[in-house]
Amino acid sequence: MSKSFDIAVIGATGSIGETLVELLEERSFPVGTLHLLASSESAGQSLPFRGKNVRVRTVEDFDFAQVQLVFFAATEAVTLAHASRAHAAGCSIIDLSNGLPSQVPQVVPEANGELLDTLQSPFLIASPSASVAVLATVLAPLRAVLKLQRVNVTACLAVSSLGREGVTELARQTTELLNMRPLEPRYFDRQIAFNLLAQVGSIDEGGYTALEKRLSAELKQVMALPLLKVAATCVQAPVFFGDSLSVSLQCAEVVDVAAVIAVLEAAPGIELIGGNDYPTAVGDAVGQDAVYVGRVRAGLDDATELNLWIASDNVRKGSALNAAQLGELLIKHYL
Amino acid sequence: MSKSFDIAVIGATGSIGETLVELLEERSFPVGTLHLLASSESAGQSLPFRGKNVRVRTVEDFDFAQVQLVFFAATEAVTLAHASRAHAAGCSIIDLSNGLPSQVPQVVPEANGELLDTLQSPFLIASPSASVAVLATVLAPLRAVLKLQRVNVTACLAVSSLGREGVTELARQTTELLNMRPLEPRYFDRQIAFNLLAQVGSIDEGGYTALEKRLSAELKQVMALPLLKVAATCVQAPVFFGDSLSVSLQCAEVVDVAAVIAVLEAAPGIELIGGNDYPTAVGDAVGQDAVYVGRVRAGLDDATELNLWIASDNVRKGSALNAAQLGELLIKHYL
Repeated sequence: MSKSFDIAVIGATGSIGETLVELLEERSFPVGTLHLLASSESAGQSLPFRGKNVRVRTVEDFDFAQVQLVFFAATEAVTLAHASRAHAAGCSIIDLSNGLPSQVPQVVPEANGELLDTLQSPFLIASPSASVAVLATVLAPLRAVLKLQRVNVTACLAVSSLGREGVTELARQTTELLNMRPLEPRYFDRQIAFNLLAQVGSIDEGGYTALEKRLSAELKQVMALPLLKVAATCVQAPVFFGDSLSVSLQCAEVVDVAAVIAVLEAAPGIELIGGNDYPTAVGDAVGQDAVYVGRVRAGLDDATELNLWIASDNVRKGSALNAAQLGELLIKHYL
Repeated sequence: MSKSFDIAVIGATGSIGETLVELLEERSFPVGTLHLLASSESAGQSLPFRGKNVRVRTVEDFDFAQVQLVFFAATEAVTLAHASRAHAAGCSIIDLSNGLPSQVPQVVPEANGELLDTLQSPFLIASPSASVAVLATVLAPLRAVLKLQRVNVTACLAVSSLGREGVTELARQTTELLNMRPLEPRYFDRQIAFNLLAQVGSIDEGGYTALEKRLSAELKQVMALPLLKVAATCVQAPVFFGDSLSVSLQCAEVVDVAAVIAVLEAAPGIELIGGNDYPTAVGDAVGQDAVYVGRVRAGLDDATELNLWIASDNVRKGSALNAAQLGELLIKHYL
C-alpha cells in the first residue's frame, strides 16, 4: 500500500512552477490530486500532468483544507497573502518565493535536510535562492574535509532567473544588435546583450542588492556556519539558462585538494569535471538535475585557499528541483 | 623646439597594434618617422597615420638602427625573434606581447611609473596583461588608504582579448543559434554564445591557466607587493569588447569606504560611478581611456573587506593605451 498526497502548486504558470509540475511527474511524486493555482490574471491556462490537462485556477478562493502540501512558487506578495490561511488549514508549506519570514528555515536536502527533525507538522520550510541551493549542495559535503572560513562568490546569473521576460528581452536585444538596429532597452534598463550587468536589482545604503544579502544570510543558515564570511557579487550575464559561479574558499587549514576531489566525486547531486576540461552552464548543466563542478584548484599564493567553478540549471536544482526534493523528504519521513 | 622620435610598431595589423597606431596619432605622440612592421604573412597592408597611408613591411629585414623606440605588439614568438636585435641596435623596447623574460619589469604608469628611474637607456619594459593594467590603475592609488593583503578577482574577458577571430566567432555562433541552426564551434572548442567559459587556454598541473598565473605574478610586481595574495579566475564571456572584473579585496585594517571613494574620485585614469548606478563594459568603458569603477562597498560580514566592479576597454587601457602612456613617459623623461 502506498500513500498519496493531495498537493497544490501556486504560481503554476511561471517558469519555476511549470518546471516543478514537470518534476513531480518525472520523479513519480505520490500525488493524489494536483491543484494548480495562480493569481487571477494567470488563472484559466492549463498544464499537462500525467497525460491530462490540469486547469490553473485562482488561489484567492481555494480551500486549502483539500490538500496536505502546498508549494508557493509565485511572487512574495502571493505567498504573503495566502500562506497563513494554508498553514492554518493544516497544510505543510514549501516556499520558493522568499515570501515567508526569515525565521522560517531555508533547507537544501544535501546540506541541512536533518533540520526537518527539529520541526513539527504542518511544516513551514523555504527553498533558498538559486545560488545558495547550488553552493550548499557543493559546500556541505566539503565540511568533512575543509574548515571553511570565507566564501567569495561571483554569481553570473542567467536572464531566466528573472522569468520569461528576461529571456525574451535578451533574445530581442541580441537580434536588434545583430541586425544593426538601434537598441532600446525595455525589460533591463540598459544593454544586456553582449554585456554584463554588475547589479541585479537596486542596492541598499550599504551598496548591496537584496539578492546578495539573501545569498550571504541563507548560505550561513543552510550550512549551519553562522560565523562564515561571505563576499557575494551577483551579476546578470547574457546567458538564457544556467548560472555560473566563480567561487574562492578560504579555510583555517591547508586544503587537501585530493581529498576535496574524492568528496566531490562521492557526493550526491554533484557531477565533477576535471582534467583539462571544465563544465559550462549551457553545455553541461541546463536540463540536468546535477550541479556541475570544475576547475578545482588550490590557491596560487595560499595553500589554505580553494578555488572552483560551478555551473547549474538555475530553474532546476536552483529552485524547482530543490523544492521537489524537499517535498520528497517531507512525505517520506514526516507527513 | 620639440624633439621627435622615430618609432617602430611591430604587429601593426593586429587589433592592439592598430589601436596603438590610432592612439599615437590621437595623443599627438611626437613621432618623426613611423615604421609599421609585421610578420611576412601580414606585411603589405596599409594603415592610416596623420592623413597618409603607411605600408606595413616585414619585420625580418628591418634595420632597427633607424628608430629609437619599438613597440612589440605581435606574438610572443615575434618578440623573441627580434627583441635582442632591436635592443642591440640601441632601441628602447615596450613589449605588449609577453615575449620578454620575466626579469623585464611590467609597468603601469599610474602604479609604478617611477620604476623607470632605476633603469637605463635603451629601456626594456613590458606592458602587463590587460587585467593587471586595469587592476593596478585602480588598486595603486588605494595603497594610500588600504593595507592590501589579498585580491580576489573574477575577470570576465571579452572575446576581443583573443583578437579578431574571437569576435568573428562570437558573432557567427550567435547568428547560428538565433536562426536555430545547429552549432559547430570553430575558434572556441565549445559554445561561447549565450554561455560563459570557465577557462581561457590550457591549465597546468596546478589547475591554472597561463593568463591567471600572469595576472597573479604581474599584479604583485606592478603593485610592489610581493606578499600580496592573489586569487584569480579568468572567464571568457560572450561579450565582444570590454572586460568586467568582479573584485574582492581583503585588508589588514577596517576599510574606510568614504576615503576609498575620495581617492578613486581624485585618481588619474579612473571614472567612478556610484549611487544606484554602475558601469558596464559596453555601456561605459568601450572606446574610452578611463577605467570605470562601481559598486564600491565594504564587506557584508567583514569590515576589512572591500568589494568593487571594474569595467574597461581591454584593447585600450588594458593594452594599447598603457603602452602608449609608457612611451610618453619614456620620451618625456628618459630618451
